[in-house]
Amino acid sequence: MNLHDYLKEKTASVELALDSILGEDLGRASILKEAMRYSVFAGGKRLRPVLVIAAAEAVGGREEDVITAACAIELIHTYSLIHDDLPAMDDDDFRRGRPTNHKVYGEAIAILAGDALLTKAFEVLAGCSVPGDDGRVMLRVIREIAAAAGARGMVGGQAVDILSEGKPVDAATLLAIHKNKTGALLRAAVRTGAILAGAGEEELAALTSFAEEFGLVFQITDDILNVVGDSAIMGKPVGTDVQRAKATYPALYGLAGARQRARAGRERALAALSPFDAKADPLRLLVNYLLEREK
Amino acid sequence: MNLHDYLKEKTASVELALDSILGEDLGRASILKEAMRYSVFAGGKRLRPVLVIAAAEAVGGREEDVITAACAIELIHTYSLIHDDLPAMDDDDFRRGRPTNHKVYGEAIAILAGDALLTKAFEVLAGCSVPGDDGRVMLRVIREIAAAAGARGMVGGQAVDILSEGKPVDAATLLAIHKNKTGALLRAAVRTGAILAGAGEEELAALTSFAEEFGLVFQITDDILNVVGDSAIMGKPVGTDVQRAKATYPALYGLAGARQRARAGRERALAALSPFDAKADPLRLLVNYLLEREK
Repeated sequence: MNLHDYLKEKTASVELALDSILGEDLGRASILKEAMRYSVFAGGKRLRPVLVIAAAEAVGGREEDVITAACAIELIHTYSLIHDDLPAMDDDDFRRGRPTNHKVYGEAIAILAGDALLTKAFEVLAGCSVPGDDGRVMLRVIREIAAAAGARGMVGGQAVDILSEGKPVDAATLLAIHKNKTGALLRAAVRTGAILAGAGEEELAALTSFAEEFGLVFQITDDILNVVGDSAIMGKPVGTDVQRAKATYPALYGLAGARQRARAGRERALAALSPFDAKADPLRLLVNYLLEREK
Repeated sequence: MNLHDYLKEKTASVELALDSILGEDLGRASILKEAMRYSVFAGGKRLRPVLVIAAAEAVGGREEDVITAACAIELIHTYSLIHDDLPAMDDDDFRRGRPTNHKVYGEAIAILAGDALLTKAFEVLAGCSVPGDDGRVMLRVIREIAAAAGARGMVGGQAVDILSEGKPVDAATLLAIHKNKTGALLRAAVRTGAILAGAGEEELAALTSFAEEFGLVFQITDDILNVVGDSAIMGKPVGTDVQRAKATYPALYGLAGARQRARAGRERALAALSPFDAKADPLRLLVNYLLEREK
């Protein structure tokens, strides 16, 4: 199992499916379609859709049965980036080496492109057909994803993050911000793949533990990259968290302490996967990759 | 049948259900909850949820089976108002006699409150239980609502509306803007009530025609109120469409022409209801009310 080849294969499937989902003609609103596609096809790592697929495969599921749901989660992730980048929010001019959505299309269209992507995600989910499902499984998945993306999840985390800027943040608040802001959707991605593939409750619980540790490691390594990363490789400025006095793991524990916490999270994530056979190897490689990534 | 009593009864049910839906504790993000509730409980007419209920009742359905879906549509309507009022969009300071969401909570929280309401709507829809439905009917309703709210519907209409500001607009573009911006969600409201109540295909087609005419009359009378309305009664400034050179029916056809078009739309709406018995009377009264309303 080579992670590079696995990612290449899976992201190719995801790109193709996203292209089809975002292919419909919008007539007079064609600029909105352009803005939606600009951010969706901006060179993202497709980490969330790959997690959906890898979690499904870990319990014996097939890529083709979860690819549409995987894309829906990527649409939600993309909308959140567009809105987070807005001047009223994080006010970022660059992402992945390109101007952010509102720098290209203006704030109004950027807000609407985000709204449209979020809405499209649920249209796509409700249109998924899952083998053997009379509709109840997909409704459960929609509830899970919406709960993870909403006020008790991603949106709530972003709100607390923004409200905390420039204020001293304790460890419990930092954990709560990240658990919601990035952790909840990563967790929902893994659970979506597992549920759609018919995971048993024990398998689902184990994969959920994996996902929670994965989310923690993702956030810690993201924070570390904002301190020591190469802005040319990352396609965005580094050091911005310190400038904004953002609550981060390096700010709270120092770089060495943050790295130690990332390694410990990785060990717990791998331990959660111990009941699974080689079909879970992509998940194992993905959490290892987080500690080595340069962007 | 007295419309005033009917509206009083139904809006009371809607207020209660909305209060329950938006009652959950958001912990550190409590300001987000406050912002969501501020706009949801801002004295709206609850026209869309009442349409859901009245359409269900027209085909023999019961309020209690559609009230949650009715509230979900009101959440989507409210999110769209919050985002439309933002400085980057219509830049409105007042709505329903109160400062707009971003004037009270700031732009960042207003954007997030809108995002959270939209997301909550789909969580709520996916959690609805419909008598006799294995899940497929609710998935159909979610697809309908998402399509109506998204890039080919409400969001697309708002995009074209904003892009058209200050430019000459022809009748076809005006119709397309309103059909998407306000018409699509009104249409989805009527169809949601009918579908959940088990309407046959002929009943659904007739109610859809009704809904499309209703949406047209709603928009024309809305445009007329922006010219001749009393800002004290409406709780927002009038004359703003002319100031912004917005595409409106009075601008295109004059006041008398716009009024004539509203009356013709009302007649077509009533004709579409001719196959229905007295159970459709609330729908009949609602379209009549549009022509007499002062806000």
